[in-house]
Amino acid sequence: MKTIALMLCGTAAFAADPHLMPLPASYTPSGGRLAIDQGFRVALGGYREPRLEKAAARVIDRLARQTGMPLPGSLSKDATTATLVMETREGSAIVQRLGEDESYDLTITTRQARITAVNPLGILRGMETFLQLVDQDPKGWGVAAATIRDSPRFPWRGFSFDVSRHFMPVEVVKRTLDGMAAVKLNVLHWHLSDDQGFRVECEKYPKIQELASDGLYYTKDEIRDVIWYARDRGIRVVPEFDIPGHSTALLTAYPELGTLPGPYRIERKWGVFDPTLDPTKEEVYTFLDGFIHEMAELFPDQFFHVGGDEVNGEQWKTEHVQSFMKAHGLKDQGEFHRYFNSRVQPIVAKYAKRMMGWDEILAPGLPKDIVIQSWRGQKSLAEAARLGYSGILSAPYYLDLMHPAAEHYLADPLNEDTKSLTPEQRARILGGEAAMWSEYASPENVDSRDWPRLAAIAERFWSPQNVRDVESMYRRMETTSRWLDTLGLTHLSNYRVMLQRLAGDGPVEAVRTVADLVEPIKGYTREQTVNYTQQSPLNRLVDTARPESIPAREFNLAVGNGTMDHARLRQTLVAWRDNHIALDPMIRQREILSEVQPLSAALTEAATIGLAALDSIEGASPKPDASWIARSKASLAEAKKRKGDLVLMIVPGIESLVERAAAH
Amino acid sequence: MKTIALMLCGTAAFAADPHLMPLPASYTPSGGRLAIDQGFRVALGGYREPRLEKAAARVIDRLARQTGMPLPGSLSKDATTATLVMETREGSAIVQRLGEDESYDLTITTRQARITAVNPLGILRGMETFLQLVDQDPKGWGVAAATIRDSPRFPWRGFSFDVSRHFMPVEVVKRTLDGMAAVKLNVLHWHLSDDQGFRVECEKYPKIQELASDGLYYTKDEIRDVIWYARDRGIRVVPEFDIPGHSTALLTAYPELGTLPGPYRIERKWGVFDPTLDPTKEEVYTFLDGFIHEMAELFPDQFFHVGGDEVNGEQWKTEHVQSFMKAHGLKDQGEFHRYFNSRVQPIVAKYAKRMMGWDEILAPGLPKDIVIQSWRGQKSLAEAARLGYSGILSAPYYLDLMHPAAEHYLADPLNEDTKSLTPEQRARILGGEAAMWSEYASPENVDSRDWPRLAAIAERFWSPQNVRDVESMYRRMETTSRWLDTLGLTHLSNYRVMLQRLAGDGPVEAVRTVADLVEPIKGYTREQTVNYTQQSPLNRLVDTARPESIPAREFNLAVGNGTMDHARLRQTLVAWRDNHIALDPMIRQREILSEVQPLSAALTEAATIGLAALDSIEGASPKPDASWIARSKASLAEAKKRKGDLVLMIVPGIESLVERAAAH
Repeated sequence: MKTIALMLCGTAAFAADPHLMPLPASYTPSGGRLAIDQGFRVALGGYREPRLEKAAARVIDRLARQTGMPLPGSLSKDATTATLVMETREGSAIVQRLGEDESYDLTITTRQARITAVNPLGILRGMETFLQLVDQDPKGWGVAAATIRDSPRFPWRGFSFDVSRHFMPVEVVKRTLDGMAAVKLNVLHWHLSDDQGFRVECEKYPKIQELASDGLYYTKDEIRDVIWYARDRGIRVVPEFDIPGHSTALLTAYPELGTLPGPYRIERKWGVFDPTLDPTKEEVYTFLDGFIHEMAELFPDQFFHVGGDEVNGEQWKTEHVQSFMKAHGLKDQGEFHRYFNSRVQPIVAKYAKRMMGWDEILAPGLPKDIVIQSWRGQKSLAEAARLGYSGILSAPYYLDLMHPAAEHYLADPLNEDTKSLTPEQRARILGGEAAMWSEYASPENVDSRDWPRLAAIAERFWSPQNVRDVESMYRRMETTSRWLDTLGLTHLSNYRVMLQRLAGDGPVEAVRTVADLVEPIKGYTREQTVNYTQQSPLNRLVDTARPESIPAREFNLAVGNGTMDHARLRQTLVAWRDNHIALDPMIRQREILSEVQPLSAALTEAATIGLAALDSIEGASPKPDASWIARSKASLAEAKKRKGDLVLMIVPGIESLVERAAAH
Repeated sequence: MKTIALMLCGTAAFAADPHLMPLPASYTPSGGRLAIDQGFRVALGGYREPRLEKAAARVIDRLARQTGMPLPGSLSKDATTATLVMETREGSAIVQRLGEDESYDLTITTRQARITAVNPLGILRGMETFLQLVDQDPKGWGVAAATIRDSPRFPWRGFSFDVSRHFMPVEVVKRTLDGMAAVKLNVLHWHLSDDQGFRVECEKYPKIQELASDGLYYTKDEIRDVIWYARDRGIRVVPEFDIPGHSTALLTAYPELGTLPGPYRIERKWGVFDPTLDPTKEEVYTFLDGFIHEMAELFPDQFFHVGGDEVNGEQWKTEHVQSFMKAHGLKDQGEFHRYFNSRVQPIVAKYAKRMMGWDEILAPGLPKDIVIQSWRGQKSLAEAARLGYSGILSAPYYLDLMHPAAEHYLADPLNEDTKSLTPEQRARILGGEAAMWSEYASPENVDSRDWPRLAAIAERFWSPQNVRDVESMYRRMETTSRWLDTLGLTHLSNYRVMLQRLAGDGPVEAVRTVADLVEPIKGYTREQTVNYTQQSPLNRLVDTARPESIPAREFNLAVGNGTMDHARLRQTLVAWRDNHIALDPMIRQREILSEVQPLSAALTEAATIGLAALDSIEGASPKPDASWIARSKASLAEAKKRKGDLVLMIVPGIESLVERAAAH
């Protein structure tokens, strides 16, 4: 199956689209090719700043990694002979601003490639395009000559990274930033606190790191380091500290801020929990003033995210809250939450930040400079825009839900629901943010949850709205996935490591055959099988298998539309059918493989049915009778059902074979 | 083929030997199993030092990586309930000494594992044994109960790492140290200077790093960091600065030390070169005094390696040298070199070090505390031992020569040539050192040149002399190889990365099929094809393919002794025969694959012959006639010939099929 999948991908090289993701606003091939060899040199033209010099050094380093060629490390001073010239007209803000010009032109001739941009940000974007275009031909490494004019569709193209539920060390954050820059995302929304851990050092309130983090937090030096690392890559860093809900960890350190007296303990499970700050207490605002002051100095970005989502209101049923609400004329939980926000927003503003929050914070009376992040969807966002609030879309981009790339890809921040907006209102929809909530993500497997699907979402945010050819997207996403792995992301390399752990000394290929063809269950259904906690090992097949099985997708597609030749199809089905023979003894010997049993059995069953259908289609056996067809369909219906936390994905292809056998 | 290879490996689990490398001096299974779960705790008993605490933290961290289970990070204080207790009687020297006690006992019961040792070094060795034994069974992770008593055969078990010809960054050195510790090696011999680069910062002579390193050198802080990292793992660090030959880089910085006036340039090619220090100049000894003084302070180990190999004597033919020799009664180059060493040795001794060097430094008159490293072999070493000199063996352990693991493994420091030594003389043979000369090794592929063969050599140095079952070694080496990869070595992960670079967007499996079955040519023959330099890209198939093809070895073995079943054999041969169909179009499109063409064609040819032979053996076709046999043998003789820098390794298996077809 592996080979087949890759062979289909192999055709990408012949497809019309350049192997770029996101696709640029315009790409015009001009014939010929710029050779990349060990004479490769980079020169800077126009405005200079250290960030550009670092970028040039990075181009050389990354090109050396991509090609495996040692390349001289120093900048060329000669823009006429350099292979790549990067030229900027003016500098950029020290603190990157929303909406700064990211456009660039990239002109590649047979003699030279030249990136020109108004702002260094455009150079950073164009340089990724250039690197992504480097490939091999019969003469060696090079880039096809072309003219590219490019600029982003949305100014806010973010990735929200939950480092609370599972802590992600600095190296994970950094390689995530590398990947984001590669696909031209420009905001890291750092979800730094939640019920399960508060991940930042605070000098004024040190119990935060002492009691609310299990020792797993970023020092302020590390945060500064990450911010500079991000800035070098043209990425803003927006911190989120979730209040008044999602604050169990904070209340573990400072129970006096809670609505109930506590004591509180860092939450180990997943879900929405009761602990909530107490909006009736003045000391809560004193604390927040001190905390936000320190964090506003640490995080230079203009935006400051205060969460605000999923307050379940349980703790607010208590007497002193109810009487406070009555005394202040606050009718319900919504109004009470609005009161809280109306107290928090001036604090945020006092430290020169614009407040951001999830849908729930939207309420009349808050100033128009706040920004809404929508987990509810385009309708909610359109509503906000109509009221004069800016917003970004996150609802359709939750990577932890394990949905296929196409689904994320086709969700547009400007859809039917936003159609009736005026142009001015529409401009308030600033873009979107993908999100990774880390209940089931560890430093080891998080990359495989983010990538390569995040690249497809990045294209949605960057490329023109009419770029929505799903097949082209999948072809380019596979190429991009491999390119991202050379950059240091681990979604491919750790797959192998995790498969090997599952296989132990046994034949890893047998485990891989199943792993390649299954997917973790979708949405919020994983809790149903096991009582997962923060300590649950994430070392099983469900943690290893990719969110979307590309081999299964390609199989279903090729069999469904009849483009897979029968010899190859038979070979594939035989290999699947017989895989259980190799796998079964391993499963019996290794506890860690126990959940693989029903999936492997279902694969054998489905492949056996597929082979019988193929025999019949080819005339090697008589046309199947109605009873066989009925039994086969029933078996396949079973085979595609959820098994534990996983689903076997190749059944639709087999079903179409049975249909064809029945019809012919 | 992949699956077959792994299936053969899969049987390792059932073999008699525990999956350990090196094998311990004694291993006695005692029945039952110690479960490893999230309740895993480590406690220290007896003597305490920070190194032991760090070791305990490392056990936890590595176990979490091996198993994928989050494990609590802190030490247990309760030795009765801890899963693993590590207990030492006394401390070790701050600067690890040659011959310090490394023995340990490891007792694993169904309740607890306990490592006891005289010296913390024994704990470090025992902890690796423990980690290596952790595996899965139907109930989960655990370790089979057993009693292990273990101690090394030789006190000097080294790895000589050339970081001059290709610089290896600190992270490469550190992961090499991790791997060395895992297989109980205890000396990093750091080959820091050669014609192609001088890799250490020197405050007294800063032109070394400024002019002789291309900017690729270790700062003194980095060196100290590496030395502490090694010490934490029970590894001594012996620096080598090669004089008076192999010193082109040094002479680039300080030409006034050269025998000829220069100017000199850092050497970019491989071989033995003329530039040599001038032993007639007093300023050379003044320089060496200053340099060795500084380095002796930087490197705490008792030993200091001055190289001394491969002086070709060309520069010493010059007049002033010849008249110096005459004036001092030095008859030939050998005596002149001896004179140089007799000047250098007191400098080394003055800074409280024992001088070490290659065979060439051995000459009467030098004090008996010097140590000889032999690239000439056991005979040379025995000769030195007879003269009263200690020595270590390196000749049969040059990993860069791409020889099979078995060859290194079976070479014993105490062989026929040392038989006539008295026990006292024999004790002067302290052990051995594997070596990696880095002409064709880059940070990307060096691990695959070192590992896993270095593990087999480590067993030679550690385990009892009678441990020499080659099949057991290969089985355990494969298991160990995967274990080392989880530790952070990249010999498996970078193989995938490099294959992907070769394949680009094409089917990587087609490239892998060939890569799995070929080996780089052996010995010093690679120079013959291309004028390699330090700048040559090491990104080709020859740089990717492993030094020893385990799949080919297993194929040849299984077909040769008739243990491979015919169905599987046929399937394998068909896949090999047809691989070229997928690969050929890629080869035409990618310059980087051009050298793969003749190998891929040879594989198809060999597989086609193998299939015909198989048909005949199975009676599906008549017995082959003499002309077919002759033609086939001729074809196979061609197929196994060197093609460029590579050799196809599966031909012996096919030849045995042809023999069988001819005979039946």
